[in-house]
Amino acid sequence: MANQQCSGGTGIAGCSFSVHPMSDRFIEIITGALEKADTSKVWMNTDDVTTTVRGKLTHVFDVTKAIFIHAAETGEHVAFEATYSLGCPGDSAGDVYLAEDDAPANHEQVKEIHQPVAAKFSLYPLGGGNYMDIIMNQIEAMKKHVDVSHAHYATRLDGHSVKIFEGLQQVFEATVEGGSSHTVMTVSISANSPSHKGGSNNE
Amino acid sequence: MANQQCSGGTGIAGCSFSVHPMSDRFIEIITGALEKADTSKVWMNTDDVTTTVRGKLTHVFDVTKAIFIHAAETGEHVAFEATYSLGCPGDSAGDVYLAEDDAPANHEQVKEIHQPVAAKFSLYPLGGGNYMDIIMNQIEAMKKHVDVSHAHYATRLDGHSVKIFEGLQQVFEATVEGGSSHTVMTVSISANSPSHKGGSNNE
Repeated sequence: MANQQCSGGTGIAGCSFSVHPMSDRFIEIITGALEKADTSKVWMNTDDVTTTVRGKLTHVFDVTKAIFIHAAETGEHVAFEATYSLGCPGDSAGDVYLAEDDAPANHEQVKEIHQPVAAKFSLYPLGGGNYMDIIMNQIEAMKKHVDVSHAHYATRLDGHSVKIFEGLQQVFEATVEGGSSHTVMTVSISANSPSHKGGSNNE
Repeated sequence: MANQQCSGGTGIAGCSFSVHPMSDRFIEIITGALEKADTSKVWMNTDDVTTTVRGKLTHVFDVTKAIFIHAAETGEHVAFEATYSLGCPGDSAGDVYLAEDDAPANHEQVKEIHQPVAAKFSLYPLGGGNYMDIIMNQIEAMKKHVDVSHAHYATRLDGHSVKIFEGLQQVFEATVEGGSSHTVMTVSISANSPSHKGGSNNE
């Protein structure tokens, strides 16, 4: 089915993402981050374009956060690009591992790592629901943790990576709970960039 | 308007994208690519997370293609991540340059550069229209130029970058012409990856 661009039957969340270290050591950094993260609670596959993770929503966010943070803690300039998805009508039921418990495997290991980042995210609720109010409320809630500002085609976030991933997961979950049957969120995160300007929006 | 995640009033296309060279020379490669591309027919702004281009659709594709190809022709492993957008209801009318003509400024310069790449794209027609038939027809048409296969959350393309950008622009235009009033397309492209395996889908 060449035209089937998405996956994520009932309850199966997924993420197609990449970690791009701007460094000659990129293979070592990516391999190291993949090894350090505990991926035992998701299905995961890496090819030459992206890495795909599928499983329960909480584990999908936990694993992608951990892989990014382990890459960024090398101190190199690292970019993270991800599309999170849940509920695509064209999904297959295969290639997934649904862990029995909801305890995020990497939480303890990464929660104390303070990694400032700049991020942009966009939310696309494709399956209806009262989503605009939810997005607005969730972005308001996110302001308690990180700086939020407008960017073209996205909302910009500046803050610590653990807080940013917490906020992203909350926005995504609230959109699903608000009635969106097919939810897509794109995220770009930049760590250790020589262009960072103290977290301000330099648009 | 912190909750306004998108831009692109009637006729204004845009793209938020990043080029990530996996190399210690990343600044030189990015700067060089931005300089080599002719960006005179679009509005463009680069911050520490992404570069934003706004203008006529044909110029937005032309400029993003040229910047990616100039980065990739250094021979370094380069990733390109982009979200193309047209028709977002929340758009502002500012930050745009609408060139008077439709002649793509970079076409002659890059058309003969043969850069094999692996790509994944996803199309999100948010504004209605008879889009599923259009997507299927366009993906069929794309098979004349590049290899097309299924990936989780995306359609995979393997081929030469000029052909892949041609195909992406055609799919996007056909979706808009098919009645989608708000169209979003995400694209990930990888060039010169040590993991490339001759263009096959190794999923």
